Amino acid sequence: MSTDPKFEFLCRMGDNALVLGHRVSEWCGTAPVLEEDIALANMALDLIGQTQLWLGMAGEVEGAGRDADKLAFRRDVWDFRNVLLVEQPNGDFGQTMMRQFLFDAWHLAQLTALIDSSDKEIAAIAEKSAKEVTYHLERSSDTVIGLGDGTEESHRRMQAALDLLWPYVGEMFLGDDVDAAMKDAGIAPDPAILRAGYDQLVRDTLAAATLTKPEDDFAHRGGKSGARHSEHLGHMLTQMQWLQRAYPDATW
Amino acid sequence: MSTDPKFEFLCRMGDNALVLGHRVSEWCGTAPVLEEDIALANMALDLIGQTQLWLGMAGEVEGAGRDADKLAFRRDVWDFRNVLLVEQPNGDFGQTMMRQFLFDAWHLAQLTALIDSSDKEIAAIAEKSAKEVTYHLERSSDTVIGLGDGTEESHRRMQAALDLLWPYVGEMFLGDDVDAAMKDAGIAPDPAILRAGYDQLVRDTLAAATLTKPEDDFAHRGGKSGARHSEHLGHMLTQMQWLQRAYPDATW
Repeated sequence: MSTDPKFEFLCRMGDNALVLGHRVSEWCGTAPVLEEDIALANMALDLIGQTQLWLGMAGEVEGAGRDADKLAFRRDVWDFRNVLLVEQPNGDFGQTMMRQFLFDAWHLAQLTALIDSSDKEIAAIAEKSAKEVTYHLERSSDTVIGLGDGTEESHRRMQAALDLLWPYVGEMFLGDDVDAAMKDAGIAPDPAILRAGYDQLVRDTLAAATLTKPEDDFAHRGGKSGARHSEHLGHMLTQMQWLQRAYPDATW
Repeated sequence: MSTDPKFEFLCRMGDNALVLGHRVSEWCGTAPVLEEDIALANMALDLIGQTQLWLGMAGEVEGAGRDADKLAFRRDVWDFRNVLLVEQPNGDFGQTMMRQFLFDAWHLAQLTALIDSSDKEIAAIAEKSAKEVTYHLERSSDTVIGLGDGTEESHRRMQAALDLLWPYVGEMFLGDDVDAAMKDAGIAPDPAILRAGYDQLVRDTLAAATLTKPEDDFAHRGGKSGARHSEHLGHMLTQMQWLQRAYPDATW
């Protein structure tokens, strides 16, 4: 494992986008209506595009000859640095959109803060990404409200999705040595300072959706540090990485 | 692709056992009751043990330095020679047991015929395997009867499983050039001659299970020749082969 905190930080940003992008791409061709299918595929493409930028920069910072593709397809599960939230399975469409909303709300806050980064390359990636994620959040929050305040069945499913995913929210705001180093260098914000704004946004959205935030704020952790991913990531990687695993140096 | 029909034949026997063995192993830890969980795991182990023998012999016949592990873990989907039936997903417990019954009934007939093979090594593997498969068939046919002639819900599910899987039965009895070469050499029976006994057994079992055999005998094909597998096999291999794909020459 690299001990360069900037490399770690860039892998975290890139892996969040990569893992969520792959998860969302799993809907391609099977979403409930055509417009949602296209919208999900577009969002997945945005996220994979952001992955290219973050992991591309991570590879340059590392200086070991790994590009974005190598980092995406030739690392195993323990080297991934995404938060646990984004690796959770899609479930039904509502669960996918709840996961999206809970991530988007953090993602936009993080990217907005990174626009002021002391690192100009990071600031530029953040500015480009924030435009896309603004739209992601608009869509996901609208959908959470529409389905939460919808039929009895859609409400029940959205509440179940929220109850299932809430324990994965806290990890996004837990800082560690890498975050401290980024903060000291003026590169990235302390994760904890994003929490108040996040809570406000979530509260307003859930109120409009007639959904109830779980009382318990217990947070699973281990994804962004790589210490312990959930069982789902390894299974996802068997699909995502099968080609590069089976044909390690294939070119075409 | 090897053009040696004996190698092809041995891969077919081995791949049937391997793919079904892996499928059945997917139940490990998640079967509906503890005794079924253990029984399924034991059956999977029997099948993987048979795989070792068939693919081990296939590797020797091929003479290219591939052992059973290499054949199991380092071939891609188009080189697999199992019938389409065994690669179909588990579905619910009833569907798994219906698939098992439909295969076991053919498997035992095939192995019983192979005990008279002109090839003594094949005859020995068949004799050992037939003892295990006799028990598999006893269990699977009892379960098909018990669930078919059970509750309204279990009956409905077993009939749905039969309707789903029946189009994969015919392939087991369709002969080709490989089968003709095996028959001419006295190594294996013409697949077609096993059909009458199979139909009789299936008819009796389904009658006891109060289930109705579909009228249409349309048969999917392409598995045992390797010409066209169903989409499910590739996905299964990403899981089954992930370790050897990610770490191609690992030893421990």
